[in-house]
Amino acid sequence: MSESEEAHRERTRRHKAVVDAKIAAATRDKGLLLVLTGNGKGKSSSAFGMVARTLGYGRRAAVFQFIKGTENVGERAFFSTHPDVIWEKCGEGFTWETQDRARDIAAARAGWEKARAALSDPSISLVVLDELTYPITYRYLAVGEIMAAIEARPPMQHVVITGRAADDALIAAADTVSAIRDVKHAFRDGVRAQEGIDR
Amino acid sequence: MSESEEAHRERTRRHKAVVDAKIAAATRDKGLLLVLTGNGKGKSSSAFGMVARTLGYGRRAAVFQFIKGTENVGERAFFSTHPDVIWEKCGEGFTWETQDRARDIAAARAGWEKARAALSDPSISLVVLDELTYPITYRYLAVGEIMAAIEARPPMQHVVITGRAADDALIAAADTVSAIRDVKHAFRDGVRAQEGIDR
Repeated sequence: MSESEEAHRERTRRHKAVVDAKIAAATRDKGLLLVLTGNGKGKSSSAFGMVARTLGYGRRAAVFQFIKGTENVGERAFFSTHPDVIWEKCGEGFTWETQDRARDIAAARAGWEKARAALSDPSISLVVLDELTYPITYRYLAVGEIMAAIEARPPMQHVVITGRAADDALIAAADTVSAIRDVKHAFRDGVRAQEGIDR
Repeated sequence: MSESEEAHRERTRRHKAVVDAKIAAATRDKGLLLVLTGNGKGKSSSAFGMVARTLGYGRRAAVFQFIKGTENVGERAFFSTHPDVIWEKCGEGFTWETQDRARDIAAARAGWEKARAALSDPSISLVVLDELTYPITYRYLAVGEIMAAIEARPPMQHVVITGRAADDALIAAADTVSAIRDVKHAFRDGVRAQEGIDR
């Protein structure tokens, strides 16, 4: 064995010891609240990846899309007909599309009532509240009411909330929070939303 | 209509004009190179969400997992048997697990050769190079060789690279880059990787 290989082994052995100790210390299972926020690409798509993972274990997932427009998008085409998926569209696009605050509030509330039912159903392993931060920011929904339902959910149920500018109450209550920073986005180079990537 | 509703309409009308102008300026289609980096949760799961979106349009996706361990994880269970998915595991875990640099290099190279074939196949709409940043950082693979294959790919093929500490050459070449910051992670509270969320 060359010296550099031996040095490599020694270095990785030390690294492995540190990683193994951290893994040994993490032994609990818990229904997690995850918040994916920030202005970069990857928040909703990450939530849909977790839907795929959940289905991979034969478990059920429920997705509530609070803002998405009416267009047929890839994730809905792919997941919404799966027998273990509940898929609800809870809005008709960003509020500046509808230009009708009362209608937006009614759509958000109707969506939230369906989401609340999923949050009390222990047969659902993962609840995705996609773009829920916007109806909170616009005060269509009260964050206190949302937090109460999330806190009262079945103990092993996971919840993922996506959207820019997550409310401090969501951040404080979450187990895992990722802030996704937009370093670069093809949109600013004149590339429109690409099928399979952005929608 | 109340005055506040009128004010709301005027504000959203202005917002809509700005958003519409940006959307009108983005008219091109392009095969994108996306880099999802940073130390937060959501990089690989976002890539898997894009696999779901791609399949939702009836298109093909290829996933190369460069580091993942041997365990059966949700994403592989869910996607790997789909007829429009190529799924390849190109490593046996982090290098500190195998403790064998030569074997890790051989596994990374063998995986890269398969990925390179996908990068020259125009029938594949999306190529995910999951955790590719690690074999680059460890110098198992040369970033120049990887960049050359990515630049020579079919023009409408999308490529997603995930992993911490993405090389500057990847960042520079990418169309879209998200840096995912770990604000909080349940792991540090003693919660182990949860099925459906982290694996």
